[in-house]
Amino acid sequence: MRIPILKLHNYLLISIQIELDDKSAIQFQEDLLNKIHQSGATGVVIDLTSVDIIDSFIAKVLGDVVSMSDLMGAKVVLTGIQPAVAITLMDLGIHLRDVPTALNLEQGLIRLQQELEE
Amino acid sequence: MRIPILKLHNYLLISIQIELDDKSAIQFQEDLLNKIHQSGATGVVIDLTSVDIIDSFIAKVLGDVVSMSDLMGAKVVLTGIQPAVAITLMDLGIHLRDVPTALNLEQGLIRLQQELEE
Repeated sequence: MRIPILKLHNYLLISIQIELDDKSAIQFQEDLLNKIHQSGATGVVIDLTSVDIIDSFIAKVLGDVVSMSDLMGAKVVLTGIQPAVAITLMDLGIHLRDVPTALNLEQGLIRLQQELEE
Repeated sequence: MRIPILKLHNYLLISIQIELDDKSAIQFQEDLLNKIHQSGATGVVIDLTSVDIIDSFIAKVLGDVVSMSDLMGAKVVLTGIQPAVAITLMDLGIHLRDVPTALNLEQGLIRLQQELEE
């Protein structure tokens, strides 16, 4: 199954509301990078509000997606990271240090605008 | 599988990017109505750009979703309706006469704002 990617102006919005298995995560990575390429989007908001827990593979894919999008010229903001997800990311050494975060989608879009205006 | 519903300000955004089977369509109807109730959203944009064709059952569910959302106080805008989908809707007598439409998500949001300001 594929995660829908919504295009709004120059941004791509994604809300992950299913439990990601390895295959969907890789598919998502591929779809997102293709969509950035096609659309020329300058920013991406990935909302994780509905994700309660992630395993090490998914955490790694997520970290990679952020770095890859950055390489392609699109700034990623992660929103709605829950405590268990934050812990898993840290445990795995995925620090996402330069990745802006925000509470929810609205805040994420505001954050993205700030980042891109800098 | 569930279709993600994104909340942005007072609006809900949905992009249908999978082939809907009967079960997913009913699940979507239920999820959307619950989300309208929970969030107090005043508008909904359903983007059908990626839907190439729909069958009579899905068309009926879609028509119902629009009427039900309206009853609950949320205005629906449909975007990206493709020719085959428009034909199926008409063939089934689902005229959606009072339903505003637009080309894509951005235009849909603008349309929604116009509708709600009237």
